[in-house]
Amino acid sequence: MKLITYTANGYSRIGAITNDDKIIDLNYAYQAQLQSEGKYRFKEIAEAFVPSEMEVFLQGGKESIEIAQNAVNYALENSDTYQHKLIFNKDEVKIEAPLQKPGKIFAVGHNYREHILEMGRQIPTHPVVFAKFANTIIGPQDDIPFQPVSEQLDYEAEFAFVIGKRAKNVSEKEAFDYVAGYTVANDVTYRDIQRRTLQWLQGKTVDGSLPLGPWLVTADEIKDPQSLEMVLTVNGEERQRTNTANQVFTVKRLVSFLSHLATLEPGDIVITGTPGGVIQAMEPQVWLRDGDVVRVEIEQVGVLENTVRKNREE
Amino acid sequence: MKLITYTANGYSRIGAITNDDKIIDLNYAYQAQLQSEGKYRFKEIAEAFVPSEMEVFLQGGKESIEIAQNAVNYALENSDTYQHKLIFNKDEVKIEAPLQKPGKIFAVGHNYREHILEMGRQIPTHPVVFAKFANTIIGPQDDIPFQPVSEQLDYEAEFAFVIGKRAKNVSEKEAFDYVAGYTVANDVTYRDIQRRTLQWLQGKTVDGSLPLGPWLVTADEIKDPQSLEMVLTVNGEERQRTNTANQVFTVKRLVSFLSHLATLEPGDIVITGTPGGVIQAMEPQVWLRDGDVVRVEIEQVGVLENTVRKNREE
Repeated sequence: MKLITYTANGYSRIGAITNDDKIIDLNYAYQAQLQSEGKYRFKEIAEAFVPSEMEVFLQGGKESIEIAQNAVNYALENSDTYQHKLIFNKDEVKIEAPLQKPGKIFAVGHNYREHILEMGRQIPTHPVVFAKFANTIIGPQDDIPFQPVSEQLDYEAEFAFVIGKRAKNVSEKEAFDYVAGYTVANDVTYRDIQRRTLQWLQGKTVDGSLPLGPWLVTADEIKDPQSLEMVLTVNGEERQRTNTANQVFTVKRLVSFLSHLATLEPGDIVITGTPGGVIQAMEPQVWLRDGDVVRVEIEQVGVLENTVRKNREE
Repeated sequence: MKLITYTANGYSRIGAITNDDKIIDLNYAYQAQLQSEGKYRFKEIAEAFVPSEMEVFLQGGKESIEIAQNAVNYALENSDTYQHKLIFNKDEVKIEAPLQKPGKIFAVGHNYREHILEMGRQIPTHPVVFAKFANTIIGPQDDIPFQPVSEQLDYEAEFAFVIGKRAKNVSEKEAFDYVAGYTVANDVTYRDIQRRTLQWLQGKTVDGSLPLGPWLVTADEIKDPQSLEMVLTVNGEERQRTNTANQVFTVKRLVSFLSHLATLEPGDIVITGTPGGVIQAMEPQVWLRDGDVVRVEIEQVGVLENTVRKNREE
């Protein structure tokens, strides 16, 4: 399933999106199914197993995902049977970032082998990890706000995974059991701010600097997360290209590594690093500017495209 | 007021603690007051203005703090008038960290002038900021879990402030209007893990590495946050001593600085840096061990004392 968060009539709720761009509201679909089965407490049961907020929904684990999938199938066959609209066309809603309030966003640096070697660096023995906070998250239909704190705005295409089950001291072997799914991220970075102190956080957690989406592809749909081509373009010009096969620290290794430091919770996001080709490493450095269109595509996952906009009122 | 989060009968709720260690449940106190005024919807009104979770309560800003103060006064004079117990003795409850799920925890490095100069470093032009996540938070009556990821466990006494109002691009002059209050923190750090990569996060966000509390002193009670003596002892032996007058970046400067990067929200925590005297800088380095008692006292704010415990089951 491709899970989304969408906004319609002023409410943000989770849904699934089909290959022909139909959006099914998961909570209402399950309410409708339960009602059709004669359940008096259909609303309460749906709220318990398929709540309408992604982080909370993911707490239900594989059970909730399976229930949601069945509810989607029900809704597609019985779309007119419920008091609330079950199915929307894509142009009737706004698609938001799939997750809005993750408890943690871990980001990985220096994780693509070919890029590390071309920079003359050694392959690291431990992942370099840093943080972004949830104020950075924007969705696939949002603009990247170019905050007036710096002129050095850069992109970083990243493959992201999302935790689906509390993880503490997990082995690599069992790691995939803790991954809910995958999405596309752009770790937008203010370079001079990132570099002006030892710690990168201040250049990394600026409001709106984490485009995320367009959806969360559930883990069952990605057979091998370490074989995905990733390409970033700016105004159609290719800037970054790699394959997740080049990652030094794979998804399962990162789950294990991070879960030995901190207890991971459903909805926690890990963005797994960017390859070569960022503006920082170009000569001359032509930073992102107002109107630039940054597009990240990851094979089997999706396309995330956002336009940079100077934030004029600030 | 000194605001706490306490647990009794399996429920964690917020309260105020008096100088003679009486704990008043804020939400029930306000319910009782409203009921005595003949309000039918006393529960709903209390839930709206004085909810029982700290981060949500702080969203009510100064209005909710004022209502809570009045409710405390009511409860102290009318303690037997309500269906729920309004007042507890300290030994009837467990005191937790005042905040449990802040959206952000910003930490500041290299922020004490005398310590920077004694290390032969330059006074930084911008704060060094890094992150901890909420999985680190433990309370004043919890042990510091010594996770088996490292042997190099160190302390860092820190003065912490908590945001009380959404802050975006705030000036230093108006900064105090955005501070809800102050508390004591210990930025427990696994030194070798902190240093093994460029970014400190992995040695800083280990489960249970942020003792916090014992309470949140509301901002009105601290006339000058830049004049507070702070002392850390280990098993009674003084290791760190400074005064917040020595901070390079003051509370109001940090509010302004951080609010220009990221929108700060009620409940966000900033721990403002540690002075000299950490084990990392000692010779020989005798790291914290099982049973050590680490005590941080900040004048006018409070005492935070925790015991280090090897986590044997892991």
